[in-house]
Amino acid sequence: MTTRSLFLLPGDGIGTETMAEVRKIIAWMNEAQGAGFVTDEGLVGGSAYDAHGVAISEGDMKKALAADAVLFGAVGGPKWDNVPYDVRPEAGLLRLRKDLALFANLRPAICYPALADASSLKPELVQGLDILIVRELTGGVYFGEPKQITDLGNGQKRAVDTQVYDTFEIERIAAVAFELARTRRNAVCSMEKRNVMKSGVLWNEVVTATHKDRYADVQLSHMLADAGGMQLVRQPKQFDVIVTDNLFGDMLSDIAAMLTGSLGMLPSASLGAPDPVTGKRKAMYEPVHGSAPDIAGEGIANPIAMIASFAMCLRYSFNMVAEADRLEQAIANVLEKGIRTGDIMAPGCRKVGTTEMGDTILAEF
Amino acid sequence: MTTRSLFLLPGDGIGTETMAEVRKIIAWMNEAQGAGFVTDEGLVGGSAYDAHGVAISEGDMKKALAADAVLFGAVGGPKWDNVPYDVRPEAGLLRLRKDLALFANLRPAICYPALADASSLKPELVQGLDILIVRELTGGVYFGEPKQITDLGNGQKRAVDTQVYDTFEIERIAAVAFELARTRRNAVCSMEKRNVMKSGVLWNEVVTATHKDRYADVQLSHMLADAGGMQLVRQPKQFDVIVTDNLFGDMLSDIAAMLTGSLGMLPSASLGAPDPVTGKRKAMYEPVHGSAPDIAGEGIANPIAMIASFAMCLRYSFNMVAEADRLEQAIANVLEKGIRTGDIMAPGCRKVGTTEMGDTILAEF
Ligand SMILES: CC(C)[C@H](C(=O)O)[C@@H](O)C(=O)O
Ligand SMILES: CC(C)[C@H](C(=O)O)[C@@H](O)C(=O)O
Repeated sequence: MTTRSLFLLPGDGIGTETMAEVRKIIAWMNEAQGAGFVTDEGLVGGSAYDAHGVAISEGDMKKALAADAVLFGAVGGPKWDNVPYDVRPEAGLLRLRKDLALFANLRPAICYPALADASSLKPELVQGLDILIVRELTGGVYFGEPKQITDLGNGQKRAVDTQVYDTFEIERIAAVAFELARTRRNAVCSMEKRNVMKSGVLWNEVVTATHKDRYADVQLSHMLADAGGMQLVRQPKQFDVIVTDNLFGDMLSDIAAMLTGSLGMLPSASLGAPDPVTGKRKAMYEPVHGSAPDIAGEGIANPIAMIASFAMCLRYSFNMVAEADRLEQAIANVLEKGIRTGDIMAPGCRKVGTTEMGDTILAEF
Repeated sequence: MTTRSLFLLPGDGIGTETMAEVRKIIAWMNEAQGAGFVTDEGLVGGSAYDAHGVAISEGDMKKALAADAVLFGAVGGPKWDNVPYDVRPEAGLLRLRKDLALFANLRPAICYPALADASSLKPELVQGLDILIVRELTGGVYFGEPKQITDLGNGQKRAVDTQVYDTFEIERIAAVAFELARTRRNAVCSMEKRNVMKSGVLWNEVVTATHKDRYADVQLSHMLADAGGMQLVRQPKQFDVIVTDNLFGDMLSDIAAMLTGSLGMLPSASLGAPDPVTGKRKAMYEPVHGSAPDIAGEGIANPIAMIASFAMCLRYSFNMVAEADRLEQAIANVLEKGIRTGDIMAPGCRKVGTTEMGDTILAEF
């Protein structure tokens, strides 16, 4: 029997509550389908800091590196707002991305038909929306050195962050975007600020060359990142796949997610390069939303983004495409039936808590 | 008689057409009111490149430095897409900002009541919207060194941009934001990515200290820039003044502008520090929109953003508050009357070209 190893990092806040619903689905797949998932669990973010004084322990990093896939909940909360920079909750997430070399972050922004009215955009602009943002995740200003604050001595400090991109980093993320576009509507829009940033100039050049050499069949366009943000707000359905750097990807994917009206529902996948021998790629799956400390512990958090992240895991890490499709369909069905957590409650729907939402999706699965 | 010197830089594309409408208003103010404006005019962007091989000539830079205020149209167009990086059209704009030390960029995002339906957001979310984005304009990743592309020799290049902020740069822009908030709804939201960037850590620290020391009466909040982008889309009316760095300001102000549905109408002011002796500050005024090469030369461009930029000039450079108010009111009245250029045309309105729109506003002024 295949074994499939999963390392679960629920993290902080609602992370533990939403991960519990995924654990039920995993257990059911093992029992009913002999899926062979083997799970282990660790601490990340504030909860790791409380236990170990760091945002993720060396032991848990080892387990994350060894697993077929990592499921990540969320990190952070006011309790840890003043911990030292190096051990702040986000440091755990950033270390996982970097040490697992998860350079490709896939962020689908889809609008669940049942939720089009929840968007702040006019419904006709988001109805049927299906964009995929491909964000570079291990480079740029997130990790470039120097990254420091220096005391200049006269009451002045100087803060420096460094945006660095090498050709190969841009080429490999562009390739991911083009490959995925081929499975979708075959169009990629690349976003940077080449009119201001040298990294934007190189980005543009390498994406263009990669397209010409290997993906000339895909439709490619370029947009300045500020104009791209505007176009996302104005007419989001013009896009299929958007490829962009780490920092622009952070901003643009959050905006795209918010547009859909489905923020609490959106998953993400962070993938490494395929191993040259086994073809396996390291991967981590996490909701786009955060730890929502304001509602943590109340049993009312929406588990859909976490469950949808597990669906991406089935698809990308285990090639269980049919199961992924069915799980995503189960989510859509439950929404169609008017079952809602508080964050997406609408007139005429039935309001449920985290557990009941998880159970209902599992029953539909 | 006072003389007031204005240096006009229409630039490229629709810049020349929209500037022509401002020139009429200036002429009328001189004739009818003895306003004493003395104007001179230069080239910037692609038109400067065509004439001089640079994005702005030394002679025009001298004139810009000597004037009481600069009015700037727009730069760029496909014709100059492949000119060398250092003389690309945007280089003229960036040099003006830097050499005139225009560190404070004020970008009002208001929704003209007559245009609320033009927004892609639901009208109730933007009706009455009035945000002011205060963007740092002479620091950060736009100007930090190193900024270069290096050939690494193995088919690889490395691009580097540097985000740098010193304490004094953050303090002075924060002070501008707090001062302006006092004339409005007295609330400032500061946006950065302190969870990832050291410049965000320093930004947060200096804004907080400036608030505590000098502006404790103003309400201050902090948001991560990605969350800020989401909140702008979700519930823009929650904000009064937003203060942020150069790159985040570029993204966030464009998104805010697009939200209003009034993109073609929005002005901006870029201000320097007051001269210690005269109290005068260098200043440049420009529309938020670009050069719109696709419609340039057709006489159909919307001149309102350029005219509203001149209204900001009256207000901030010449303290002609009553005139500024009247000019802004004239714009609002003309819109109320259903006079529209093509970009904001709506059923039941009357469509006019650039000249007629300018004439109608002048008649109303
Ligand atoms: C938590 C934070 C470090 C992270 C980021 O900036 O990448 C988050 O905003 C995200 O987009 O995953
Ligand atoms: C034209 C470009 C250099 C400029 C910028 O990035 O600042 C523009 O986008 C703006 O916001 O004024």
